Amino acid sequence: MPVVAVVGDGQLARMMQTEAIELGIETRVLAGAPDESAAQVFGDVRIGDYTDLADLKAIAEGADAVTFDHEHVPNEFAQTLIDAGVAVEPRPEALIFAQDKLEQRRRLADLGAPVPEFAPITSPADAQAFWHQVDGAVCLKATRGGYDGHGVWFPSSESECSELVADLLDRDVPLMAERKIAFDRELSAMVARNRSGEVAAWPVVESQQDDGICRVAISPAPELDDEIARECRDLACRIAEELDVTGVLAVELFEAGGKIQVNELAMRPHNTGHWTQDGCVTSQFEQHLRAVLDWPLGSTAPTAPVTVMVNTLGGEQQPEMPVAERVAEVMRRYPQVKVHLYGKTYRAGRKMGHVNVAADTLEEALAVAEDAAHFIVNAAWLERRAEGE
Amino acid sequence: MPVVAVVGDGQLARMMQTEAIELGIETRVLAGAPDESAAQVFGDVRIGDYTDLADLKAIAEGADAVTFDHEHVPNEFAQTLIDAGVAVEPRPEALIFAQDKLEQRRRLADLGAPVPEFAPITSPADAQAFWHQVDGAVCLKATRGGYDGHGVWFPSSESECSELVADLLDRDVPLMAERKIAFDRELSAMVARNRSGEVAAWPVVESQQDDGICRVAISPAPELDDEIARECRDLACRIAEELDVTGVLAVELFEAGGKIQVNELAMRPHNTGHWTQDGCVTSQFEQHLRAVLDWPLGSTAPTAPVTVMVNTLGGEQQPEMPVAERVAEVMRRYPQVKVHLYGKTYRAGRKMGHVNVAADTLEEALAVAEDAAHFIVNAAWLERRAEGE
Repeated sequence: MPVVAVVGDGQLARMMQTEAIELGIETRVLAGAPDESAAQVFGDVRIGDYTDLADLKAIAEGADAVTFDHEHVPNEFAQTLIDAGVAVEPRPEALIFAQDKLEQRRRLADLGAPVPEFAPITSPADAQAFWHQVDGAVCLKATRGGYDGHGVWFPSSESECSELVADLLDRDVPLMAERKIAFDRELSAMVARNRSGEVAAWPVVESQQDDGICRVAISPAPELDDEIARECRDLACRIAEELDVTGVLAVELFEAGGKIQVNELAMRPHNTGHWTQDGCVTSQFEQHLRAVLDWPLGSTAPTAPVTVMVNTLGGEQQPEMPVAERVAEVMRRYPQVKVHLYGKTYRAGRKMGHVNVAADTLEEALAVAEDAAHFIVNAAWLERRAEGE
Repeated sequence: MPVVAVVGDGQLARMMQTEAIELGIETRVLAGAPDESAAQVFGDVRIGDYTDLADLKAIAEGADAVTFDHEHVPNEFAQTLIDAGVAVEPRPEALIFAQDKLEQRRRLADLGAPVPEFAPITSPADAQAFWHQVDGAVCLKATRGGYDGHGVWFPSSESECSELVADLLDRDVPLMAERKIAFDRELSAMVARNRSGEVAAWPVVESQQDDGICRVAISPAPELDDEIARECRDLACRIAEELDVTGVLAVELFEAGGKIQVNELAMRPHNTGHWTQDGCVTSQFEQHLRAVLDWPLGSTAPTAPVTVMVNTLGGEQQPEMPVAERVAEVMRRYPQVKVHLYGKTYRAGRKMGHVNVAADTLEEALAVAEDAAHFIVNAAWLERRAEGE
């Protein structure tokens, strides 16, 4: 059976391991430390640095595919591995468009994909010009390194915008600006593509963020117009093909007034795809492994009318009740809840786990998932809190 | 989060690990060798001997629960651990009835559970008497150590029976005899029970054996009379309660003329429960972990109208096509098939893996699962073979 080397030690790598075990795929992980989320659950753990070529070479040696749970491996090192005959998936030519937001906007615009108005920002003057171009609806972004709301700014005045840009450029943060979108909601169109070019799309999901962090995903996106759903899926498939993506691709979208625009791309399993573990024939983690091994892709048919995922983010403070007790309480109240925990130590706002709930109706799935996640975070039920208030 | 120590290194332990990862439960495994099925996929692998008290003590140290993927841990050692305060689940007082078939028959008969006529056999004279009692319909069983058809004999004449008994007793094989049942089919009623006494039952399954090895499981058992289904579930729940079972309990049953009789008991995840991985809200492996930790049990609701499991047993000879290619071919033809492989080296007749297929109809699920399993074993499709013949 083939060997897949995973670079990155977070929950995405951890959940790939779950699927690899069942498929009989051998795995190894390059982790920063032995107690990281993924390092806890791989049989073959190599401690090292994903920005160190020697460590990357070591993990890649004899592997049938090398893949990632993040986008931060230096592309020149990935290319070195490829030149040595290693199947690195996705490849740097694709990954660059998930790494560099400006490259991504340019490429998507070239493809005719709907993106917000944007501009490179290399000086406060650029920022001033763009400010006027979009009537002050400016979203500033670090072109590289942002995630979960980090690296995104919404200046509220022209002077704030100029000062922010001057400051960031001083600190060598590469910048771009785009029109701030007043969206109705966020959608996520996820697909997987294998090296041979097969593409499979999951149902389009509605995602809800808190402070830039995905907190809720609902599959399928409620009351989504069929035409828009098709447009989202077609767009994601086309991006996967045009960018020669291998593995899972998440296309985060804004929906506004019946139109969609691309927000972000991710080329790996994605938070808005966690629902597939318990609501779909093939989970995104299994699909990613199949795609990077150039195996045929699995069915993306849902197994329930609605599946809701809610993240359990570390709360403002940790409840006194141990997490195992909180989990047991949730299981007692809701036998249908699927609990997923990442083995991480508590930190406020940290993604510690998620719950998935499949149900016949949106109302039921959402109510149960929200209540269950709330209890895991706070050791208190939503309803009881409501009663007490 | 709690720590579960698993004694035994086969596929059942391996598939517990899959669920433990998602639940965030810490695990360790006591394995005979580092390349055994489960040892490949646990982060914490202790190489040792499950009949060695020191090895058992080491794996149990600091664990919140100790459980098994087989029934062969000496009960006196399990008791030693319990006396030292370790939660060994299931406990030896229960496990004895899965280990010793004669004890089991006696206990089930005491409970009024339907079991075939049986007798202890300590001499050829005992065997002769029983032969006449059941008019030659004799099934001889080793009371301990049998599995997958091993340790079961069907003598075809009185003299063969006597000679066999004399020979086996000479070799110190402890024996019992029971009436050979002319059954219509075999059923499996599976439940889980936690230490607090909560019991959850899965739908009753039809199982089909080849040479005593489970090959197919169909959930729910096709055209099963509602009354019999209820009887099977009630019986399994009652056995779990009366025997104080913790964890998963499989009650293998004969169905004959609208009546059921108990064939075997297993107190661990069971081959006839593998379908739950892809056809049920809570898999037997997750449920077993929850039960041995005394967590509340999960929903046993099916997620599809029918789910069929077919084992992939090592064929008479290994095909030239590598297993990864066979798996890829199956994935290409059947995107809905769920492949589970155990990381085992080939041996004829060995349980190497299984496939699960959920579908709207029995016909579809069975046809796809049989064809997929056949290809993984033989590198040939069933239909093509039929065309060629």
